[in-house]
Amino acid sequence: MAHLTIGSLIFDELDQVDLTGPHEVLSRLPDSSYAIYGKSLAPARDMRGLRILPDATIAEAPQLDVLHIPGGFGVDAQMVDPEIIAWIRRQAEGAKLVFTVCTGALLLGATGLLKGRRATTHWASHHILPSFGAVPVRERVVEDGKFVTAAGVTSGFDGALQVAARLRGQAVAEGIQLYMQYDPHPPFQAGTPESAPPEVVHATRVAMAGVIGRREEMARRIGAALT
Amino acid sequence: MAHLTIGSLIFDELDQVDLTGPHEVLSRLPDSSYAIYGKSLAPARDMRGLRILPDATIAEAPQLDVLHIPGGFGVDAQMVDPEIIAWIRRQAEGAKLVFTVCTGALLLGATGLLKGRRATTHWASHHILPSFGAVPVRERVVEDGKFVTAAGVTSGFDGALQVAARLRGQAVAEGIQLYMQYDPHPPFQAGTPESAPPEVVHATRVAMAGVIGRREEMARRIGAALT
Repeated sequence: MAHLTIGSLIFDELDQVDLTGPHEVLSRLPDSSYAIYGKSLAPARDMRGLRILPDATIAEAPQLDVLHIPGGFGVDAQMVDPEIIAWIRRQAEGAKLVFTVCTGALLLGATGLLKGRRATTHWASHHILPSFGAVPVRERVVEDGKFVTAAGVTSGFDGALQVAARLRGQAVAEGIQLYMQYDPHPPFQAGTPESAPPEVVHATRVAMAGVIGRREEMARRIGAALT
Repeated sequence: MAHLTIGSLIFDELDQVDLTGPHEVLSRLPDSSYAIYGKSLAPARDMRGLRILPDATIAEAPQLDVLHIPGGFGVDAQMVDPEIIAWIRRQAEGAKLVFTVCTGALLLGATGLLKGRRATTHWASHHILPSFGAVPVRERVVEDGKFVTAAGVTSGFDGALQVAARLRGQAVAEGIQLYMQYDPHPPFQAGTPESAPPEVVHATRVAMAGVIGRREEMARRIGAALT
């Protein structure tokens, strides 16, 4: 069993569970190391203010075996940062496995590497995937070759367990699932636009409309430059 | 609707998802503020190395309306820290709602406030609850008056959504659930000792035996001093 070097990218205005969910799983893989990489060593502030410290800068990162990319409103700024995009593209090309959570898929898409690949992302941004040439799939976790994409926020747990099983076998994934008592019982049925009450879906869409509108335009522009 | 002051305790060797899961939900409640309190302003390092910054020290905390206590191996050191125990007891006595995740219930138990109360905690420490006079209940989330206790690690999402609904109504909780796309599909059936393969349960129990043994002894000693 070869040692695995696993790393997550971190940036301001990420959604912290896109990072912390997979961290809970991937930091527990046997014979592996896990680190968080930021553009600087400054703490990254999530969308709601949680401050997480990177372990090292992206410039210090070795070639990773497993690259994990979280999402959140902050992906928009990252998609137009040439240093970040170049780092993701280079790392993703050399990695054995690339795992995105939530709108981390858009950030990966902005590198051009999702062209012709089946992928998923947060439900509110799902229609943006084709701007990058990706084939949108309405599933919670989508695997296409070495690319594993998970849907919104909490889907990172399901995706990370699949990644864990792929890298270290099902028994290892099950041991981590048992440790973290991942036997979810959501008290309400509202986890998707299809299952949530229509008025809740409407209010959430309205609240996100500004962000999504700007992101659509940005993705079209970036996507056009990729072709 | 009265403003809510919500706060989480943070400490070294916590399990970060015990904190970050509820943070995702509770930091999104309308008309509320949320902060993380540490014994100092130094970053707290989770069991697997994730470093999170407190927003303020426990000495600076106002009386909280909602007190959230995470767990993890680090609870053992906190249970015998008189400053931490006094802070939790004082805050919990004045709070409208106290919410523990994972072995955060043991930390609350060490204050004496769970005596005669129905409660739950991580499956591997569930049998320790009676040392503090608590009534152990094998459910994922247990509510007894103002005390809400959730089972291991990822159960904090389910517990936090129940807390959100209780404080701000079901539609608010559903909106947060939809945003974070909490429609879990664990790829394996291994989230509890009852559902996981026996060999996985055995290996996990063996790996945790040292920690649990020391914790049993410590809890007996603390519990005896409470009576």
